[in-house]
Amino acid sequence: MLNVGVIGTGVMGAEHARLLRREVAGARLAAVCDTSMDRAETVAQGARVFADAHELIAEVDAVVVASPDATHADYALASIALGKPVLCEKPLAASAADGLRIVEAEIAGGRRLVTVGFMRRFDPAYVEMKRELLSGRIGRAVILHNIHRNVSAPDWFTGAMTITNSFVHEIDISRFLLAEEMVDVQVSAAPGDDPLMITMRTDAGTVVSSEVNINAGYGYHVHAQIVGRSGTVEMAPPAVVTSNLAGHGRLSYASGWVPRFADAYRRQMQAWVDGIVDGRPVGASAWDGYMTTAIAEVAAGAMRSGERTAIRLPQRPPFYD
Amino acid sequence: MLNVGVIGTGVMGAEHARLLRREVAGARLAAVCDTSMDRAETVAQGARVFADAHELIAEVDAVVVASPDATHADYALASIALGKPVLCEKPLAASAADGLRIVEAEIAGGRRLVTVGFMRRFDPAYVEMKRELLSGRIGRAVILHNIHRNVSAPDWFTGAMTITNSFVHEIDISRFLLAEEMVDVQVSAAPGDDPLMITMRTDAGTVVSSEVNINAGYGYHVHAQIVGRSGTVEMAPPAVVTSNLAGHGRLSYASGWVPRFADAYRRQMQAWVDGIVDGRPVGASAWDGYMTTAIAEVAAGAMRSGERTAIRLPQRPPFYD
Amino acid sequence: MLNVGVIGTGVMGAEHARLLRREVAGARLAAVCDTSMDRAETVAQGARVFADAHELIAEVDAVVVASPDATHADYALASIALGKPVLCEKPLAASAADGLRIVEAEIAGGRRLVTVGFMRRFDPAYVEMKRELLSGRIGRAVILHNIHRNVSAPDWFTGAMTITNSFVHEIDISRFLLAEEMVDVQVSAAPGDDPLMITMRTDAGTVVSSEVNINAGYGYHVHAQIVGRSGTVEMAPPAVVTSNLAGHGRLSYASGWVPRFADAYRRQMQAWVDGIVDGRPVGASAWDGYMTTAIAEVAAGAMRSGERTAIRLPQRPPFYD
Amino acid sequence: MLNVGVIGTGVMGAEHARLLRREVAGARLAAVCDTSMDRAETVAQGARVFADAHELIAEVDAVVVASPDATHADYALASIALGKPVLCEKPLAASAADGLRIVEAEIAGGRRLVTVGFMRRFDPAYVEMKRELLSGRIGRAVILHNIHRNVSAPDWFTGAMTITNSFVHEIDISRFLLAEEMVDVQVSAAPGDDPLMITMRTDAGTVVSSEVNINAGYGYHVHAQIVGRSGTVEMAPPAVVTSNLAGHGRLSYASGWVPRFADAYRRQMQAWVDGIVDGRPVGASAWDGYMTTAIAEVAAGAMRSGERTAIRLPQRPPFYD
Repeated sequence: MLNVGVIGTGVMGAEHARLLRREVAGARLAAVCDTSMDRAETVAQGARVFADAHELIAEVDAVVVASPDATHADYALASIALGKPVLCEKPLAASAADGLRIVEAEIAGGRRLVTVGFMRRFDPAYVEMKRELLSGRIGRAVILHNIHRNVSAPDWFTGAMTITNSFVHEIDISRFLLAEEMVDVQVSAAPGDDPLMITMRTDAGTVVSSEVNINAGYGYHVHAQIVGRSGTVEMAPPAVVTSNLAGHGRLSYASGWVPRFADAYRRQMQAWVDGIVDGRPVGASAWDGYMTTAIAEVAAGAMRSGERTAIRLPQRPPFYD
Repeated sequence: MLNVGVIGTGVMGAEHARLLRREVAGARLAAVCDTSMDRAETVAQGARVFADAHELIAEVDAVVVASPDATHADYALASIALGKPVLCEKPLAASAADGLRIVEAEIAGGRRLVTVGFMRRFDPAYVEMKRELLSGRIGRAVILHNIHRNVSAPDWFTGAMTITNSFVHEIDISRFLLAEEMVDVQVSAAPGDDPLMITMRTDAGTVVSSEVNINAGYGYHVHAQIVGRSGTVEMAPPAVVTSNLAGHGRLSYASGWVPRFADAYRRQMQAWVDGIVDGRPVGASAWDGYMTTAIAEVAAGAMRSGERTAIRLPQRPPFYD
Repeated sequence: MLNVGVIGTGVMGAEHARLLRREVAGARLAAVCDTSMDRAETVAQGARVFADAHELIAEVDAVVVASPDATHADYALASIALGKPVLCEKPLAASAADGLRIVEAEIAGGRRLVTVGFMRRFDPAYVEMKRELLSGRIGRAVILHNIHRNVSAPDWFTGAMTITNSFVHEIDISRFLLAEEMVDVQVSAAPGDDPLMITMRTDAGTVVSSEVNINAGYGYHVHAQIVGRSGTVEMAPPAVVTSNLAGHGRLSYASGWVPRFADAYRRQMQAWVDGIVDGRPVGASAWDGYMTTAIAEVAAGAMRSGERTAIRLPQRPPFYD
Repeated sequence: MLNVGVIGTGVMGAEHARLLRREVAGARLAAVCDTSMDRAETVAQGARVFADAHELIAEVDAVVVASPDATHADYALASIALGKPVLCEKPLAASAADGLRIVEAEIAGGRRLVTVGFMRRFDPAYVEMKRELLSGRIGRAVILHNIHRNVSAPDWFTGAMTITNSFVHEIDISRFLLAEEMVDVQVSAAPGDDPLMITMRTDAGTVVSSEVNINAGYGYHVHAQIVGRSGTVEMAPPAVVTSNLAGHGRLSYASGWVPRFADAYRRQMQAWVDGIVDGRPVGASAWDGYMTTAIAEVAAGAMRSGERTAIRLPQRPPFYD
């Protein structure tokens, strides 16, 4: 039974804690930590409560980081230092430079300990799309269409946050689906820089076309389609029922990513726990987390210039093969 | 150029007149007739206007009957008497007995002149379903599911009118799709005799299961699925666009049969005109019209008794082979 | 940590054991039992292995029964006798009479211990359909359409087994969705008694129309639609992706109930474990298991007679309120 | 009754001739012309046959041009010279310069005579999408997604023909749907310059994103979605039936544009005939035809450079308001 500690008990931390208590085999919620002790107590439901994240890291078998973005790198590095597996909510770090430090620390430690919580990799639809591509039935991928729509952005969402906060999911899932690296990026923005249409090309020549729309209005909607040389595969509408009402046939969209990706979050947590027990790394690695942040930084520049911009990043270290 | 006269200028008559004026090749709207001269003038748009249907029949090359149901048999018989092709809105006659008289008159005349306006036979979805069944791909039909939903029934819709007015479309299209005859019928009614679930069996053992729902509330919705021994074929949702709005993905239903079957009505009229020119009967025959009314009469009895009720009707005369 | 023993390690037993080991929080696979010790060892993966089911029942906190149908009643009664919660695969018993004995034993014991494994009650689509009905948005239910299609039936599937083995799922889920009791049943069979169209009516007048098709050929396909006075709700196609290939857009059907209802089985097991811990009964009760078997026995008679047949069964004991 | 002559009796010319003979009210096929007299006779079905297109133009009331692309401008100019309405298959002219000459000739003649056969403007799905956008329900358009997939390109399809032959449809329909002008264009090509992802921006800031895929393999597939500030509208799958067969639910794609847009071609022809009778221009104007060719020329350059390229074109003359 793996004793897991959760740092941060906001929306995502509370959800991770709930999964550990109620839906995941082989692990238990051993401890939580938050700057708000009240919130921590509510989420703990009997688990130990820490005010200091570093103390929590020292006391548990494995760590989930769901605290504010700016703290991720610090807790990831602390987990590595103590040899504790860590599932870190995205982003791995606030900058590519910080992400690279985590990569270097992990390599120096000689053990794969970091998983970045890009939960889409565990969503059954993305998994099935990748399986279909690998089956060869649709031929070699030539285009990947991504659509990422949020109902509405909070007030503090400004400038390049559409890229650094939302589009990072497309960067990661595109690398996951295609197993190719991005070589350039070009951004076309609608009025007010919202929504964005972002075109990337990979080292194999595949075109990745992404709509990132943080004020779609009608619902939270994520879609993807891989176009191959002989066919395509795409997500089905993510609804378990449809209805007929008031003149319309209809299906309901989720209100946000937690309900939409509920099963992906659960599968990610179960796979992470199983992977620790079995000694296998699962999910997005520290390297993936670094690359995503680094590509997002280039894309933010491309958004300002409007020009096609080359992405020049280091080769993947053999450690992550 | 075929000179066509339209008797009755209500909703259906006006639509038939419009088709003849604006959407059909090889024919022209030569005359209309109605008890309301005002309405007739409006629909005529320059065509001759008659107060007496029999005078109209005498003056045109071919006749469309869209007057009140009770008058259909009279005008069909008059058209036969003058050797004029006639497209008669359903029902062919107000009773099976009257329908049989038309059949006998047509046979006596020695020429196929009557087409009953069961327009669904020209709907591309039904046509494609029949083609798929005939292709053999789905195997022999074992079940036909029909769904017939109207938004709401008018006040004067009472008792067995759900059967005699609405379900007649399912009787005709089931006979058309399967090319089998019905041998028994059983009716299960929800509270207030609405909706009905009607189960028929054919002489080949196929089960025809129909929901007839005259107050479905949400829209006009007709659906059918043929279940074969190795696969199924069914109507796609009848919408050309879908939208995402206010939390939902959605498609719109038609408000009634005229918009839903607009293309079927046009195709029926064009095929009828072409058939007259080419000397080929098309669509539902007088025999089909008689059979539908006769089966509906048995079904109305089965609705009252609640019991499975045998359908015993004459064999099809060779004239209609 | 609840110690659970699984009796029977065939397809379903092995799946239940896997869920307890790998996907469910709060329980562990403590023991398995099978007449084949080899199979039992394979499934046990370190849990204790029993040759005698009664010995297993004595040693665990809770019991899963997945042995051959004829043994269910015996093990359910043994579990009740020892006060152990039991999740019994359907059917609860081989006959209504045996089912009633279990009900009586449970009542005599004074504690709700039996859950029957009608896993559809935990399928997200059925759960959402029930929620939509209860919301009132589609109005009062008037028709429930069920479709139950298996790819092909095994050789030993004969006579009324379509009813006693397959249709029982529709009986249970219809009672679950509508919360109404069935009052009569009528069966129309295609040639070879396959497929069946079965019409039931409830004490509230709702019509339940079910296609049960054990040789559908194309795939395992379960569908349901509730028709209300102002709208409908139905299952969405159960596919996470769609593809375009070789002239067609397509989605894939599951090959059988285990993959189709994988998530329902997991949710059922988690809910059962949680319910034991929390002291709440969940899922189909012994009473539901008895009713389903009793209704199926009436339906089997109705299949032979072809007539509408009344269902006269005892009132639900207050113990099951 | 309008006497129409058809120049060119290849696939499109034969289809236009058939429409005039069999599906359109108010016109007749009066004459055809082709360099192959055999083919012309076959298509004529009794209409006059000309070897010289200019003679045909002189003898009919209105002209359909469906001859090889290089001849379009000549016949369009000849029709204008004789004051005859002309429906010219796309492209209006082989170059923007030639297109502009037709515009100038039409303006000089003082009468709108030219319709370019961009039939998508008459497709019910595009018409409904435009209506939905104009309704205001989905808010102001911010992105238009186009997908244009052909099964496979003929051998002679090389270089920029993906743009000049296929993408022209997206240029025209985007201008039609949005009623905005394009201001820049950027092209990202998959390996072998196939498929292309083309991003245009309009004078209102809307982003138009188009996949043009001339070897999609699985079928002919055209799709579009307008993303507005509060919702989206898109084409429904263009199938009238769906089937279940061999493990899959499926719908069939058309093999090419003639079957996919059969109804659009019919509606275009009927609208063109009606427009001539009523004195109203319908469909894409000579100006639209010129603009499309001119934008395609810029896009072809952008394909070669890979850079975002400004589109600088004349203002629309008031004559075309």
